[in-house]
Amino acid sequence: MNLNDNVLLADIGNTYFHVYDGTHVEHLLYEDALVKYQDKVLYYISVNHHLGAQIEKVVLWKNISSLISIEGEYETMGVDRKALCISHHSGVFIDAGSAITVDVVEKGVYMGGFILPGLKAYVESYKSISSVLDIVLNKELKLEHLPITTKDGISYGIIASIKALIDQQREGKTLYFTGGDGKFLSSFFEEVIYDEMLVFNGMQQAIMNKG
Amino acid sequence: MNLNDNVLLADIGNTYFHVYDGTHVEHLLYEDALVKYQDKVLYYISVNHHLGAQIEKVVLWKNISSLISIEGEYETMGVDRKALCISHHSGVFIDAGSAITVDVVEKGVYMGGFILPGLKAYVESYKSISSVLDIVLNKELKLEHLPITTKDGISYGIIASIKALIDQQREGKTLYFTGGDGKFLSSFFEEVIYDEMLVFNGMQQAIMNKG
Repeated sequence: MNLNDNVLLADIGNTYFHVYDGTHVEHLLYEDALVKYQDKVLYYISVNHHLGAQIEKVVLWKNISSLISIEGEYETMGVDRKALCISHHSGVFIDAGSAITVDVVEKGVYMGGFILPGLKAYVESYKSISSVLDIVLNKELKLEHLPITTKDGISYGIIASIKALIDQQREGKTLYFTGGDGKFLSSFFEEVIYDEMLVFNGMQQAIMNKG
Repeated sequence: MNLNDNVLLADIGNTYFHVYDGTHVEHLLYEDALVKYQDKVLYYISVNHHLGAQIEKVVLWKNISSLISIEGEYETMGVDRKALCISHHSGVFIDAGSAITVDVVEKGVYMGGFILPGLKAYVESYKSISSVLDIVLNKELKLEHLPITTKDGISYGIIASIKALIDQQREGKTLYFTGGDGKFLSSFFEEVIYDEMLVFNGMQQAIMNKG
């Protein structure tokens, strides 16, 4: 199997279809993706179990999930996380979407990882505890000083706790960020790479190595 | 004002009344506290705005919130956090309840702090993202190795991110834990103090110093 310019790649999540045409990434809803791309050759991976049967029926679309694997993977590991983890030989891979997954890879071997709530889920979580904690994330937050307001105290709690745990995993490895909040979150770290193509790069690697 | 053996202290939260009789702490619902203690002299602080007017009417109960203050406090700082922060001259004070508050005090001066979701709110937060992330916290979790299952990946995300951020604040200071999840959370740290009396100790300090 060889990748050519006419093949589209899709990463199907719980909310969006992410489609890569070889140049850029498009994010669209399932219905819109179906209308726009059902007559195109498209290789996909999907973590969306609800859509499984419907997607399988589209004749020109091919599920390449079985090609995606990494040494050390665990049984229930999402295929998008595996694709992300094979995009580079070593690194800490952070996908900041509805949840934030953090995975560590050393020389092609999966070392483990963890999951944090997504930024939106964090904010909703405080809101569910008390109306006093119902705030909008301060996106201009500075982490140099301890905050002294509720809004900043919550924003700091979210951002600084995520950052503290991710920084512990670095040990000289590169941090690779992707996902809807990946660019924003990466701005709190030094010397990192944000790349919305990472999952697609992993898919390409798998196709070229195993096809 | 002097504290004697007949005076009860109460810390009134959003869910529970915490009553200290000089020996131990009792946690009870508002209605039960009213039945049991309305004929006793009781000094209280409260962050429960819904109950405010009702509690004020109880003749033998006295709101001592105005006595509780700390240099550097901010306007909307909860009175229970202030009481906690004056319980010792210096330290990092962690109250792990429905939310987890972390406050830093140096030589009697409030330096700032932050707020994290409570353990229950974290678990609910993952559940709200996807049914795949609906797990029970692994209370036997070990932090030495990166996890490789969803349950442990979530448990690690919660505990290790809280721990990483709190450890950053230590800088030689003592960590003081209190609150319903305080004992459990403190078990992941080295050389810490868990004490369910901390808020009451702060109230006693305020009464003795200012009364």
